Amino acid sequence: MTHTIKDVAKLAGVGIATVSRVINQNGYVSPDTAKRVMKAMAELDFTPSPLARGLVSRKTATIGLVIPDVANPFFAEVARGTEDAAIAKGFTVILCNSDWKAEREKMYSKLLRQKWAEGVIAVGSRSSESSLRELIDPLPMVFVDRFTMLPGSDSVWSDNKKGGLLATQHLIDMGCRKLAHISGPTHSPASIARQKGFLLGIKEANVSWEIVKGDFRYRSGYDAGMELLTRDVPPDGIFAGNDLMAVGILQAAASLHIRIPDDLLVIGYDNIAMAEYVAPPLSTVDQPAYEMGRIAFDMLHKKMQDETRESRNVREFEPLLILRESTNRK
Amino acid sequence: MTHTIKDVAKLAGVGIATVSRVINQNGYVSPDTAKRVMKAMAELDFTPSPLARGLVSRKTATIGLVIPDVANPFFAEVARGTEDAAIAKGFTVILCNSDWKAEREKMYSKLLRQKWAEGVIAVGSRSSESSLRELIDPLPMVFVDRFTMLPGSDSVWSDNKKGGLLATQHLIDMGCRKLAHISGPTHSPASIARQKGFLLGIKEANVSWEIVKGDFRYRSGYDAGMELLTRDVPPDGIFAGNDLMAVGILQAAASLHIRIPDDLLVIGYDNIAMAEYVAPPLSTVDQPAYEMGRIAFDMLHKKMQDETRESRNVREFEPLLILRESTNRK
Repeated sequence: MTHTIKDVAKLAGVGIATVSRVINQNGYVSPDTAKRVMKAMAELDFTPSPLARGLVSRKTATIGLVIPDVANPFFAEVARGTEDAAIAKGFTVILCNSDWKAEREKMYSKLLRQKWAEGVIAVGSRSSESSLRELIDPLPMVFVDRFTMLPGSDSVWSDNKKGGLLATQHLIDMGCRKLAHISGPTHSPASIARQKGFLLGIKEANVSWEIVKGDFRYRSGYDAGMELLTRDVPPDGIFAGNDLMAVGILQAAASLHIRIPDDLLVIGYDNIAMAEYVAPPLSTVDQPAYEMGRIAFDMLHKKMQDETRESRNVREFEPLLILRESTNRK
Repeated sequence: MTHTIKDVAKLAGVGIATVSRVINQNGYVSPDTAKRVMKAMAELDFTPSPLARGLVSRKTATIGLVIPDVANPFFAEVARGTEDAAIAKGFTVILCNSDWKAEREKMYSKLLRQKWAEGVIAVGSRSSESSLRELIDPLPMVFVDRFTMLPGSDSVWSDNKKGGLLATQHLIDMGCRKLAHISGPTHSPASIARQKGFLLGIKEANVSWEIVKGDFRYRSGYDAGMELLTRDVPPDGIFAGNDLMAVGILQAAASLHIRIPDDLLVIGYDNIAMAEYVAPPLSTVDQPAYEMGRIAFDMLHKKMQDETRESRNVREFEPLLILRESTNRK
């Protein structure tokens, strides 16, 4: 036998309007009364139908945002852009930190489906194309900071390879003859593309070079800096895969009394707010983080309303060289 | 008539296991099949019962995190701590940015109830105690960076008044005789407490002082710095209500060729990562942001399991003076 809202009201000893208020969680209901109504619903195995209908048609107005690390200023800006655009359309955002780990991305994807998220924005995803396909089905998905050829998936990105090339060419133009690049996490698509840009840049020039592995965190930049700058012949130009690592290099150089830009030029990537305020101010390649987050939600929102989901939309930003004191050799 | 999973399978022309996979969103189902199953469920008004049961007993394993601004490094660290602790217990976190606006906190509270969040962590909340009570009922809630006497509500905070006093006394100890304080948003409890600490500090000393209004953002620190430092007799010590504004003051001083710490001492609050890397490195008052976010979730989780919810737990951190170059007058 199916129970109605009337049965719940009767069992709880309240009016139908009160049950409705509890179900929809608007208007005042005393905690005691609310508890009684909840108990009656549970006893009768009563399912509030508007919510139930919401479930079946999957209209939860919730999306998942899978980012590597919200404590990284670049991703924090993306998150803010996404949430601002989402709430403007009545959507809430579930925050997921993947630490660039494929198994965490998988875990979150599963969790987000269980919670009936209506779509997912994946930032700096490290999963392979085949597992991406698995993650995607059947949720609409937008990738940020990663380009994908998967049919039906949108992406917002800037040309990281070109950005890496611009940074490298700038160091060469400023007279550097011994270059080093600090890369990001091995499977970060952004890091891979920036490194490709670096290799392209040195290929065209007659300079010596090497690549040191980092992980996009401050500490790995500091460690790489300490290692590189204590060699017999240290590099005279370093392109760090992101600004946080570049700041770590500035610190390593300062502690070794190596002067920037006199003895060493350093350039980063992302143009986080900090880049402007460190000593010396950091040259970098700009990515509009907030804007990318905002646009990613708008693309996802469109996709959610598109029944076929066959289109593949790409919004690309031009990487922009931002020159400051850290590469300003006279 | 109540329909069963069998009816759905029959109408969709698939097996029961397939319907189950669609409902629970695990295992592979082709998009076409999934669509057919969803359509069948909608046609029969079929409610998947595990989820429905989940709804009635409100076990969504979701909490809301209402912070002023995730793009502020202090709150980003709190968010990371909260999410790490939550996912370890299988909970997801809905990210809400309030911009210190009471009406946005209200809007999010309502939204979070509609989404059957099981609890809320409110960081740096600016709502009054009476509207807090309204926000709280009937969800368990933990406040971060704000102390509350509301029965049944927990808080994680550090003693901001004491921290403000420590910062102010340090400037006086270093010989400052004309102090200025840049406050945060008018209704931020943390800002109000830090300002109280400042007033307590100057009360005990024979110094002149003034307070300029800021909003915890970099730009307001820069503007306040430009205004204060272009006066006929500028202050010789500034206590900024947070580090972002202090960095703004450093920039204003640099652009006016005012030397820090020779001509001016500056101290901030929060000890965000950036504080260590700016020029000159910034003295500040430490709050353990990540730890506070982590502990807030653990307290909330305990509270969710406590039927009575009558206890009022407080976890307090000691503010800690961090001394760097910006107040190191020889």
